[in-house]
Parts: sequence; structure tokens; C-alpha cells
Amino acid sequence: MISQESAGAVLTIDLQALADNWRGLKGRLKPGADLASVVKADGYGLGADKVASALARAGCRNFFVARLDEGIRLRKALGSQGRIFVLDGPLPGTAKEFIAHDLIPVLNEAGQISYWASESKGQAKAALHLDTGMNRLGLPSVELADLQPALEACGLCLVMSHLACAEESQNPKNALQLRWFLEARKNLSHLPASLANSSGIFLGPDYQFDLARAGVALYGVNPTPEQPNPMAQVVQLQGKIIQVRAVDTPETVGYGATHRVEAPALIATVGVGYADGWPRALSNRGCGVLGGVRVPLVGRVSMDLITFDVTKAPSHLVKPGGFISLLGDGLTVDDVAETAGTIGYEILTNLGPRYARSFVGA
Amino acid sequence: MISQESAGAVLTIDLQALADNWRGLKGRLKPGADLASVVKADGYGLGADKVASALARAGCRNFFVARLDEGIRLRKALGSQGRIFVLDGPLPGTAKEFIAHDLIPVLNEAGQISYWASESKGQAKAALHLDTGMNRLGLPSVELADLQPALEACGLCLVMSHLACAEESQNPKNALQLRWFLEARKNLSHLPASLANSSGIFLGPDYQFDLARAGVALYGVNPTPEQPNPMAQVVQLQGKIIQVRAVDTPETVGYGATHRVEAPALIATVGVGYADGWPRALSNRGCGVLGGVRVPLVGRVSMDLITFDVTKAPSHLVKPGGFISLLGDGLTVDDVAETAGTIGYEILTNLGPRYARSFVGA
Repeated sequence: MISQESAGAVLTIDLQALADNWRGLKGRLKPGADLASVVKADGYGLGADKVASALARAGCRNFFVARLDEGIRLRKALGSQGRIFVLDGPLPGTAKEFIAHDLIPVLNEAGQISYWASESKGQAKAALHLDTGMNRLGLPSVELADLQPALEACGLCLVMSHLACAEESQNPKNALQLRWFLEARKNLSHLPASLANSSGIFLGPDYQFDLARAGVALYGVNPTPEQPNPMAQVVQLQGKIIQVRAVDTPETVGYGATHRVEAPALIATVGVGYADGWPRALSNRGCGVLGGVRVPLVGRVSMDLITFDVTKAPSHLVKPGGFISLLGDGLTVDDVAETAGTIGYEILTNLGPRYARSFVGA
Repeated sequence: MISQESAGAVLTIDLQALADNWRGLKGRLKPGADLASVVKADGYGLGADKVASALARAGCRNFFVARLDEGIRLRKALGSQGRIFVLDGPLPGTAKEFIAHDLIPVLNEAGQISYWASESKGQAKAALHLDTGMNRLGLPSVELADLQPALEACGLCLVMSHLACAEESQNPKNALQLRWFLEARKNLSHLPASLANSSGIFLGPDYQFDLARAGVALYGVNPTPEQPNPMAQVVQLQGKIIQVRAVDTPETVGYGATHRVEAPALIATVGVGYADGWPRALSNRGCGVLGGVRVPLVGRVSMDLITFDVTKAPSHLVKPGGFISLLGDGLTVDDVAETAGTIGYEILTNLGPRYARSFVGA
């Protein structure tokens, strides 16, 4: 547990906003459809145990993680409640762990199917992942017929696929994947089905089937990038000012002397760096907010520190121990991602282990 | 503890190579100079406890971390041996923790100096950080005279500064910082001094003073980018193949359908993604090595997965459960960083928590 006194930054996670996002997304589903929560990558960087527990309290009964280890940790956090699906599926030598921890593997390919059929002995459940054009994980539908006998011994409780371009509502690949999914599951139509991720929910009821899987939207990232963000912001990040420097020409700031001061300036050094997942790509490009004023990130992002030109901020706030907002106060995860040349998912999942974490709204 | 069976990748850390790097760098110092190890950011992502313990066995007696919490953890790992310096310095409310855990704060500014003078009561040590042109952390030398009385109550045991451009051997800023450091410490010449980081060691004996501080070079990153890398490689990363797909035209791979297959191809999906610190900037640009053959990363890096075109790799190795080298087998941290448009430091410090970690050479 890292204290706010010692930490270089405070990450605040609003579990109420998270639960509201889950309820809001569930409200968009057609009658009878349920909403699972994707909490892989440690709950998109926010802490899977706390996040999943809050979602369970909101009514969520189905959770998805990527790795077996994530599933084992999550099962401990949730106790016996809820179903936990593991997207990697049963890698060689892991079937016993799945069964021991009441985890449901997602079967992705022929080897996993035959392995699970033989190890589970019909005593444990599994989901089947059909590939419909992502070509990453999932069974090609042409292999389905040959595997039918093995699949019958797998205890299937769900058939699923994954959309490649769901955030582009007009991309023809969406309809193509939907068609292939409908075609492939014809012989599996007795099983509940799942296709939509966060963005897929917004493609409409045809994509929602029995179980939609909400991930990034739960955490406040915009699932409809072509439109305003319908989600509530879940995270705030406050970077602590460690030192304030008065700097004048011809001085420079930081590694490589990439920022040259052009007039007398106040530089605030904050305890966040790329080792905290604040991307080095934000060097001389990012910004923060201090007392309602946007302050530019100047110089290079270094491993543990960033520097802001706070000359225009309210002077009574410019002092060691004060805080500059890096997320929140009008700065969204999507804003930061765009400036860094990436997507909000990468910003979230890289939020670092050195922050003091504060969970509110539980 | 994550097992190799369940993990999506295995990170192997060679503590022998690390110790060899420490000894090699120490051998470059002038007689009488000592070499500290910088183990902040969890030992540059490799595990500060294990890394620092191995360095202590090699003879290292001085360690630097960034945050107080890192210092507290490291003190537990090292027991009573060695000096641990904390670069952030004593933030408000933290002096007692420094003293309780036998940690040496680096005093960066007037507030920290007066706070430490009043709290430590001459019973605990500290280092003084003079800024010589980085304008990030450190005391401007013009403030030295006024602070002399307070400094005398701080128990100073080291005076230090930090180079901004040391990896560029011909950059005139190096000589300028050296001159300012010599000038500023005139009234502190009774104290041992420290200026050089990894790259600074290679600028020669004038920069080495009493204590050099080796960081990234210990971990195998090239401290002399203008020349071949003199350091031994410390990390290997082996990504596990989860699934292999035969794909043909006109199919695409991954999110956004950014990779279009141009002929029948084998695609291997590996359990590493940007949530593991494998940068999304490597989408359609990175590579791995399988059976001695370089295999291109195709499609987008996703949160938990990457995809390689393994068509040209030895076919008996192309199977679930096999491994593709992401670091090692001729791929260095610097190589990956260059492809991703960043520096090796960011690749190292973002190596993720989901890898099975194997320490060898202890």
C-alpha cells in the first residue's frame, strides 16, 4: 500500500462511475441480453479485484480475463460468485488449474478442444471461440464439423466471436463478421452466444446476442469515437509537485536539452515518468491542469519525472506538495492517448504500480 | 508467482550478466572511485529486490531509487547492508519514514533542506543535489550561500548533480555542466561528489568523481549509442504461441484489419500485448525470432496478444506451446526501442507484471 505522502502521484478510481457505466451499457442491450465485464490486464490497469467486486455489486455475473493467472486471482476476490472466462484457453498442462479454481476456459483451436475434452471429462464447462475474420484467436468455422464429437465432450456453455472494427460503425467488416458468426453457429444454436465488445454494443441489437462483453467503455474510454463519449470518467490522476524552479534564458529543461526557455519561466517537476506508464511520446507535447489553467509539459518525459511550465498558473498553487491534474479536470484518457499517438486502452493498462491508489464511490 | 505453464511469456533475467556489467563499469572508473547502482522503477522493470541483492553480492554498496516507497522495499530486501539514496528527497510528512528505514534522502530544494535540517536533528545523513543545467530536480547554485547554515544541520554525506546529454560524447553541455559542478561545490569540497550516470562514466575520469551512478547500462542497454554496445545482454523475453492459423487471401489480421495477407500464410498468436508493456507502436513493425528465423509482427499489437507471420519459420516449431523470442536471439532492448520510436529505458521499465519471471546466474 503506497501512501499519498510518499507517492509521486495519486490515482483515484471512481467505482460509482464504473458501476454507472456498467448499468448504462446494460440499459442499451435488447431485452434478455446480459452484460459481461472484461477485467483482463488487472481491470484495464485499475485493479481487477476492486473493479470486479464493484461490478458484481452492480449486478454483473460474468467476467472475462485473458490469462489463467488473472482468473485465479479474480476467483479469490469474487469468492464463489460469478462466472469467470479465460480468453487464452487451456494451454498445455493447465486444465487442472482451471477446474480447481472454477474457471471457464475459452477454447480457441483444435488442440485446446481435444485437450479440454479429455481432461475435463464432461465435468467442467467451457466456451467456444469462433473466428470470424480477426485471425488472432478462435476456431476457423471450416474446422467445426470435424471437431463436433470432441466439442460434445467439452461442456460448452457459450459460443463467442470477436469484432475487429466495431468502433467504426460504417465499416463493412462488421456486417461480414456478423454474417459469418450467424452462419458458423447454426449447428450450435442451442448455446448462448456472444459477439459484441464495448463498441459492438452500439452497433445495435443484431450484434448483442445473449451476452455482450463490455471492456474499455466501463473504464470511461469512448466506445464510439465518431461521436461524443457517452461514458462517465472513472479515473483521475494527480501528479505531485516535487520542486519548482525559476528558469531564464538561455537555459534548457530536461534530457537532451530539448526545451529551451524563451522568457523567465516557472518549471514544476512532478513525480510521474514513463516508468509509471506516462508515455515518453508525450515529451514536449502533453499537458496538465493546475488551478483550472492548462500547463504545458515541457522537455522530455524522463523515467520518474515530468516537467511543466507553470508560469501562467495561479501562483499560490505552484509549490512542492501541490498537485497537477494529469487525468481529470477536463483531461480524458482519450485526450492523453491522442496526444501520445495511441489509444486509451494503452494509457489505462500502463498506469503504473507506484501511484497511491484511492478507490472512491464503493 | 506466475508459472511458465500459465504465463503468456517468460522473462529471463541473467543476474550473472548484470553483475558482470557492474564489474565492467567499475573497472572503467579511475582509482578510488566507487560505483553505485540505480535500481529505481523496480530495478528498471526487472525486480529491484533480486537485482539489488545480486549487485550487493558483486560488491555494490550504494543504491539509488526514485521514490520513498522503493527505498522502504529495498531496505527490506538488503537488510542492514548498503546505503540507499532516495532521489525524490523528503516530501512533506515523510522524514520519519526516511529515518526509520535508514534511507538517505537527496535534498533537491530549499524547502527540503530546511525540512530535513529541522526533522533529522543532525542524527541522519542526506545527499545534496545541485542542479547544473537539467532544470528538473536540484538546487540552483545561486541559492547555496543563503542555505549554508541549514545545510550544516543536514548531515550531508554526498554532493551530486545529473548530466542532461551524457550519451552524446561531443555535446558541449557536458563540459558546461562539469564546469558548473566544479564551481558550485567549491564550498562543499570536503564532501564526496557524484556526477556521472551510465553514459557519464564513458566521458572519462574528469566526470567520475568519488561515486558514479550506473543505471541503464547495468541492464544491458548501450550507454554509448555512438559506438557498439559494451554491455552484456541481461534480459530475454520468450513469447508463448497460443494458436497457429493458416490464413489466405483476402483475409486480414487483427484490429482495424491493418494487415492484409497476400499469399497463404501461417499466423502465430502470442500471449504478449501492450498491457504487458509491448508497445502498440510496434504494430506491423516489430519482429520476433523463431528457430533462428526473423518473423515479422503483423497486424496491430492488441492488449494481450500479438500476431507473427511465421510462414518462413521451421515448421516443427510452429505450434501452440512453442516460444518466439522477443528479446534475445539477436534482438536487443535497443533494437526494440528503435523500432518503437523510443529508448531502451522505456522498454525495460514497462516490462509487465504478467510474465513468468526466471532469474538465472545467481
